Amino acid sequence: MKRNPELTVRPLTGLPMFATGMSIAQAICASLAGEDDRLRDGDILVVAQKIVSKVEGRTRDLAAFVAAEKAHELAHATGRDPEMMQAILEESSQVLRRTPAAVIAAHRTGHVLANAGIDASNVEGGEAGRVLLWPLDPDASARVLRGELQKKCEVRIGVVIADSMGRAWRIGTLGHAIGCAGLTVLEDRRGRAQDLYGRTLQATVIGVADSVAAMAALAMGEGAEGTPAALVRGCERWVTEEDGPGAVSGLRPIEQDMFR
Amino acid sequence: MKRNPELTVRPLTGLPMFATGMSIAQAICASLAGEDDRLRDGDILVVAQKIVSKVEGRTRDLAAFVAAEKAHELAHATGRDPEMMQAILEESSQVLRRTPAAVIAAHRTGHVLANAGIDASNVEGGEAGRVLLWPLDPDASARVLRGELQKKCEVRIGVVIADSMGRAWRIGTLGHAIGCAGLTVLEDRRGRAQDLYGRTLQATVIGVADSVAAMAALAMGEGAEGTPAALVRGCERWVTEEDGPGAVSGLRPIEQDMFR
Ligand SMILES: Nc1nc2c(ncn2[C@@H]2O[C@H](COP(=O)(O)OP(=O)(O)O)[C@@H](O)[C@H]2O)c(=O)[nH]1
Ligand SMILES: Nc1nc2c(ncn2[C@@H]2O[C@H](COP(=O)(O)OP(=O)(O)O)[C@@H](O)[C@H]2O)c(=O)[nH]1
Ligand SMILES: [Mn+2]
Ligand SMILES: [Mn+2]
Ligand SMILES: [Mn+2]
Ligand SMILES: [Mn+2]
Repeated sequence: MKRNPELTVRPLTGLPMFATGMSIAQAICASLAGEDDRLRDGDILVVAQKIVSKVEGRTRDLAAFVAAEKAHELAHATGRDPEMMQAILEESSQVLRRTPAAVIAAHRTGHVLANAGIDASNVEGGEAGRVLLWPLDPDASARVLRGELQKKCEVRIGVVIADSMGRAWRIGTLGHAIGCAGLTVLEDRRGRAQDLYGRTLQATVIGVADSVAAMAALAMGEGAEGTPAALVRGCERWVTEEDGPGAVSGLRPIEQDMFR
Repeated sequence: MKRNPELTVRPLTGLPMFATGMSIAQAICASLAGEDDRLRDGDILVVAQKIVSKVEGRTRDLAAFVAAEKAHELAHATGRDPEMMQAILEESSQVLRRTPAAVIAAHRTGHVLANAGIDASNVEGGEAGRVLLWPLDPDASARVLRGELQKKCEVRIGVVIADSMGRAWRIGTLGHAIGCAGLTVLEDRRGRAQDLYGRTLQATVIGVADSVAAMAALAMGEGAEGTPAALVRGCERWVTEEDGPGAVSGLRPIEQDMFR
């Protein structure tokens, strides 16, 4: 009758509409208290990029971007708005692909995604040209949130900031880890673990943080659910004492990247 | 005190070493009975590609592949074994990239991954050149397994066959859905759902099956855990009556694919 431990993912209820300067840590603790729960050692808290950007004041009016020549060129090539193209260019280090359907860019941090992460859905004033940019440094944001929560609740937890991203070759978005603190981003089992026949694993590096982000994003939803955070339990083996190298450590170095 | 429903993922215990002709359905039911549990309506059962391939007799000796000219050319370009290159060519429709580090190919089904899914880890005789190919038609395998389980247990469930795959731009493997029956592969919310401010979602297509595969693969592990199946609960909203179009429906049509 021995059952394996379960992984559980629970979207948190009762979180407010976030705006510049609000405390995510405080809101999370209040939400958990309202559910008669609290953070425990080994928990991983996943929060949506959108609320981190909101509290960090990353809302912008598109009209405030002054399209330079490159932006006009991109707007011409894609049939899209020059100010939006300017915003993408300012947020990114490289445009990988540009079509009328999508502009795929490397965000300054190195993460590759559509529109360099700029998005208007679930943003107040989005219909009038307000957009939200990514946090300036999502790994730093994760470290700060972890520090606040660990202090407030006297626990050791992992924190992931997740954003929904498209992928090469496959349709549909998945949550991806764009900021991490206190968990193993990649579990490198090469040369360290065996298979069922005692042979050493040759090629296995597990994308732990992205897997956690994918399951949490599925639970949080993409529309009007109002659940921008999820609590993941059963992953204590990946929670670390140190903050660690962050989500950027999960990015393929450009010189090893075959798909640019 | 209202808590949201949780998603749970539990790797199943006590499953045997699988070999050609064995019944996965029977083993799953026995495992669940041994855990004092049974399949329920709305469950999603995720099984590893490896055991599906094993029961379908997809084990091959590399020595049995006769390397033709193209395979020798690929072996020369990558510094790898000509017979393995021949196996990859026979399993795939296109080689996207070839380097000493990896051969990225489109499997006959259209899924893009390293070595067209051919792998020797957790395969008996792997040290002596035995490899395992993908199931011939993973979506068909998922439909068959679903049919057997639904009949045996008188339930309505979803079935996912998952494999660990690498990705463009990011390090680390994630479980991906390579065969699906009875669940929504993609939840297309474009034009159908609203955001928090009542605006219609423009671009949101959720990769449901891949998200489920990612969380299940994290629970199943990649080495000697011996847990090639996981039970996912809390996803009943994505379980469908029909088998549906399968995992291939989640692949980007080649003409829309910007990363080939
Ligand atoms: N309570 C609350 N929920 C929000 C807020 N912003 C977004 N959400 C919710 O967070 C989840 C993810 O939203 P999404 O727009 O996909 O965020 P992203 O993936 O980080 O870009 C959904 O359930 C939204 O309804 C907010 O300010 N307050
Ligand atoms: N019980 C059992 N476990 C297996 C068998 N084959 C693989 N596994 C387990 O299934 C999980 C996934 O293995 P992996 O080799 O990564 O499979 P893949 O991702 O489908 O290629 C791990 O926990 C393995 O130990 C088998 O024949 N029997
Ligand atoms: Mn976003
Ligand atoms: Mn989202
Ligand atoms: Mn495999
Ligand atoms: Mn695997």
